Amino acid sequence: MKYGFAQRVRYMRSSAVRDILKVANKENVISFAGGMPDEDLFPVEAVRHAFDKALTSGNKTLQYGETEGVMELREILVDRMMKKGIHRKAEDILVTSGSQQAIDLFSRIMFNPGDIVLTENPTYLAALQVFNSYEVNIVPVKSDNDGMIQEDLEEKIVRLKPKCIYVVPTYSNPDGKVWSLERRKHLLALANKYHVVIFEDDPYGDLQFDSAEKVPPLASMDDNKYVLYTSTFSKTVVPALRTGWIVGPHQIIRLMAQAKQATDLHTNSLSQHALIHLMNDFDIDNHIQTLISAYRERMYIMKGLLDSVDNDEISYVTPRGGMFLWVNLPKQVNTTKLLTTAVDHGVAYVPGAPFYVKKPNQNTLRLNFTNAKPDQIKLGMERLVSVIGDGSLLP
Amino acid sequence: MKYGFAQRVRYMRSSAVRDILKVANKENVISFAGGMPDEDLFPVEAVRHAFDKALTSGNKTLQYGETEGVMELREILVDRMMKKGIHRKAEDILVTSGSQQAIDLFSRIMFNPGDIVLTENPTYLAALQVFNSYEVNIVPVKSDNDGMIQEDLEEKIVRLKPKCIYVVPTYSNPDGKVWSLERRKHLLALANKYHVVIFEDDPYGDLQFDSAEKVPPLASMDDNKYVLYTSTFSKTVVPALRTGWIVGPHQIIRLMAQAKQATDLHTNSLSQHALIHLMNDFDIDNHIQTLISAYRERMYIMKGLLDSVDNDEISYVTPRGGMFLWVNLPKQVNTTKLLTTAVDHGVAYVPGAPFYVKKPNQNTLRLNFTNAKPDQIKLGMERLVSVIGDGSLLP
Repeated sequence: MKYGFAQRVRYMRSSAVRDILKVANKENVISFAGGMPDEDLFPVEAVRHAFDKALTSGNKTLQYGETEGVMELREILVDRMMKKGIHRKAEDILVTSGSQQAIDLFSRIMFNPGDIVLTENPTYLAALQVFNSYEVNIVPVKSDNDGMIQEDLEEKIVRLKPKCIYVVPTYSNPDGKVWSLERRKHLLALANKYHVVIFEDDPYGDLQFDSAEKVPPLASMDDNKYVLYTSTFSKTVVPALRTGWIVGPHQIIRLMAQAKQATDLHTNSLSQHALIHLMNDFDIDNHIQTLISAYRERMYIMKGLLDSVDNDEISYVTPRGGMFLWVNLPKQVNTTKLLTTAVDHGVAYVPGAPFYVKKPNQNTLRLNFTNAKPDQIKLGMERLVSVIGDGSLLP
Repeated sequence: MKYGFAQRVRYMRSSAVRDILKVANKENVISFAGGMPDEDLFPVEAVRHAFDKALTSGNKTLQYGETEGVMELREILVDRMMKKGIHRKAEDILVTSGSQQAIDLFSRIMFNPGDIVLTENPTYLAALQVFNSYEVNIVPVKSDNDGMIQEDLEEKIVRLKPKCIYVVPTYSNPDGKVWSLERRKHLLALANKYHVVIFEDDPYGDLQFDSAEKVPPLASMDDNKYVLYTSTFSKTVVPALRTGWIVGPHQIIRLMAQAKQATDLHTNSLSQHALIHLMNDFDIDNHIQTLISAYRERMYIMKGLLDSVDNDEISYVTPRGGMFLWVNLPKQVNTTKLLTTAVDHGVAYVPGAPFYVKKPNQNTLRLNFTNAKPDQIKLGMERLVSVIGDGSLLP
């Protein structure tokens, strides 16, 4: 039987990350390929108590719930957002099935086929997947380590009239970048000047290695007109609950809730009730400090071994937070081809190519430093260094 | 700020059911408007044990999971489907965030704007919402109490070349209808003859009042070529977990999984693990019998009070399962207008209009008999009967 599918299927691509994860699941392979937190650091006892409390607090907890999300959870989020300088009301928050769904619902109410979105390049793979599935025209803006280059950004806004600028400005995936304050302000000024909506994807903002660093979210400098801000409990509590949120202009949030109604009615409300108890009873900020200490240590182990390679053509920027270290290898290297060699040597990474909008830099790769233990990182990086440090193994 | 939204937003409509639920939440109003199970019948202890087991069975349970769903849960579903005569493999199942998401993901990979879907009329409101959001052209097929009328169905298949036929053939929402075996077979024969995909939405099939009744799902008579079958744990376990599934031809399921990856990565996996324990440790079929006894009793109380009205122009079909009783009032009555009077009398229902594809029968209404307790049903129906039985109150 030959089925007639929607045109948009042609633009959907399976996540290369997931396909590679399957390869990397071989025994004895140390994988830096995924984007997973360390499950041994999960606050399991706190989650268990929270669920127990939710499950003994009345049967309503298990009934159908409001599409917008459980009000008490939204109020907790209002408080947490306020600590980041984002002053919004509970009505401007939509609880989503992970922040991935926030990207999807936003796209659904925003984009017609052919609409233009400006992005960094490389950028979050699964956001590209969503935009592609809505047949959006994704246009990359030139960027350096401080964020998008102002001239290129303004030129593209004026010429292409994008509907949205999608950014991961803080400890980004894949390249661990942090936008400077100046670039943040400039982006907002352009959004105001040309009336362009900004989608600020911030799953990693809480994983900030130096507590003295000042990285105000874009949303904290916006008058709730142009910035949609999304984050998640996946990195700070656990991923399995698939609970994230998005906050922004009420008109947009309201339409997204309407779209969500048709998509999945509402987010798992038992998990929402459990998260309410967890946020009330558990010191999440202290837990985040534990995560930061562990992840920072692992990042430095990874960095130390990278530094041991004596090759000027290998470069990277030291992550100041988040989960990823992005490496540039010598220009002639193709990391997709090199992956087989790496896996043969017992180590896996994600080639950089799928994170690029159009023509990829084939000599890039992404390393995750949060999932593997320090010993494993050391061993895995020794293996990786033997591959990238040994000219004979490079294609 | 004026935002530029996607065209599809024009076709999205907020669920009238949900808006009315807000009205009906007034104190002292007995509501038959929702579509909720009775939370006092939830197997809370079993759910609690299941979550406790899931939360003590290793931290992996709380990590990111597979988009397709936890394999062990899919295997349990294979067994349950087999008992319904649906013989499929675990690879042909996708676990979804409620069966609502199954409708959405299917639509996403299937429909281009302008594509045609044939439906019953009236039919499930939130399926119409999804189809509208994909700018699908929904065409109703003439139906009677046994299902779609064969001649009209074939004529429309031949003339309109629909991409899909969407049906709720067993204890349907809103009108509690059950398709006859003959009509089921005929629908399948036409699907085979003209190569049309059938979407069988079956959230209520387990709530079968007479265990001797034979209502084989369409999927049980299909060679896994034309029928997509979706169901959910929302009515038999609890709705809060937002866990459903869809089973069908692998090519379609695989593409839906790809779409799901971009939509929400995967369904809440802690809930999936808890459901595995629940299905293994708890006698779900016995629990379903408890639900059936309670719901059947309530339906008969409702029916009894309806029968007390001395008006030949009021008609309904006695539900043989499910959650809804569908009533036809005298032709001149407009149930949307009548709702205010009913709420003033302390009772709420859902007007039939939003369940229709195009021109509605304004004299219809839907009553839910599962959420209210027997006493409440009696009292609420007395109130409703005073409204519909008293000619002076009818507009």
